[in-house]
Amino acid sequence: MITGRLFGVGVGPGDPELLTLKAVRILHESPVIAYVSADGRPSVARRIAAQHLLPGHSEINLALPMLPLPELAQAAYDEGASRIGSELEQGHDVAVLCEGDPLVYGSFAYLFDRLGERYPTEVVPGVVSFTAAAAAARKPLVGRAQTMVVLPATLPRDALLAQIGRTDAAAILKLGRNLAKVREVIYELGLSEQAIYVEHASGVGERVLRLVDLTADEAPYFSLLLLPAGRPS
Amino acid sequence: MITGRLFGVGVGPGDPELLTLKAVRILHESPVIAYVSADGRPSVARRIAAQHLLPGHSEINLALPMLPLPELAQAAYDEGASRIGSELEQGHDVAVLCEGDPLVYGSFAYLFDRLGERYPTEVVPGVVSFTAAAAAARKPLVGRAQTMVVLPATLPRDALLAQIGRTDAAAILKLGRNLAKVREVIYELGLSEQAIYVEHASGVGERVLRLVDLTADEAPYFSLLLLPAGRPS
Repeated sequence: MITGRLFGVGVGPGDPELLTLKAVRILHESPVIAYVSADGRPSVARRIAAQHLLPGHSEINLALPMLPLPELAQAAYDEGASRIGSELEQGHDVAVLCEGDPLVYGSFAYLFDRLGERYPTEVVPGVVSFTAAAAAARKPLVGRAQTMVVLPATLPRDALLAQIGRTDAAAILKLGRNLAKVREVIYELGLSEQAIYVEHASGVGERVLRLVDLTADEAPYFSLLLLPAGRPS
Repeated sequence: MITGRLFGVGVGPGDPELLTLKAVRILHESPVIAYVSADGRPSVARRIAAQHLLPGHSEINLALPMLPLPELAQAAYDEGASRIGSELEQGHDVAVLCEGDPLVYGSFAYLFDRLGERYPTEVVPGVVSFTAAAAAARKPLVGRAQTMVVLPATLPRDALLAQIGRTDAAAILKLGRNLAKVREVIYELGLSEQAIYVEHASGVGERVLRLVDLTADEAPYFSLLLLPAGRPS
């Protein structure tokens, strides 16, 4: 018997119009869609893709536990992979919706780990949050002989200092409760004037502010700081 | 008189199906499209977008000079900006087609520099080559507390060593004649087993190879090396 195919589908940063044509086609062709939801909240990826879903889809909601215990998360991925695997065994294609790009800071990696060797798998890349943020800020991010680092705000202070200090451009993702720490690092490096804060890039509630104009010490999870490289030489 | 609007439109890495819905809409709504062509060859961005263009578009081909002299390139951007500006003055919207994303290693920055303050400008982000390459290679690129650096292969050897040595994941773009140098750096860092070579990600002629299986010393300009971060801890 021929199994179904597993698709990791990037749905982009938030604007439903930033899905690719291919993402929309794969969603329309897949009888089953799957997505992760975290902390008891509705799935972000599903919300982004909602207007492209069809009435006939069956849906698999992989609910990650509230408690940030790695064993619980692994158990949730095990169970999700098993439900997806069962659809694939019945010959149904399954499209896993992923915010941004499936292979950049995505939970798709955990499903791919469990299913990618056993079933035919294809990944549809998507627009990532940091390029959408640069578009929202209307700032060239990196050019010519310049370098860019992409990193999560959850890193320890010293790692942030070292990484940001050695690059031309930076995108610092997942600010959340780490905003105050990241702000300190950026001021220490003398980069506060260039830093741009972007919340919900391209999505509902998009905000773009210079870091120096931002007073809060916490930020939503889907917020980031950009340090554009400036004009290339 | 109301001027036209300037759009920087990311057309993605090569597959015409990886344009976003928004990119297609903006192209359909813009009476004028513009693009850069280099070295006397047809424009890559125009080729990617070709099937989405309409018969009525007028087209501005900004031909960059063969000689890599900065003054000549600047003069070409000056002239292109002046032609685009003249359309905008007549109230025509102009969509500038950009491979990948307009603000990541794109020539759109040079036009934006010249026109972005004078005319209403919007940037439509696109899928970048390195996430399309990861999709082609079916390799998670970066996750959780990991860092990624994106850099051009044109950097000096020492800069490549330092940057790649301090990150979990790397994407090394624009290999071209720099493949031999980059290969040496990757072997020196003991990373050759992980390195994946991707040529024309998602486009015609896509090739994915392990670096250790690649014998050539030169590569096309639109090729890159990925160092995926490996399974996050």
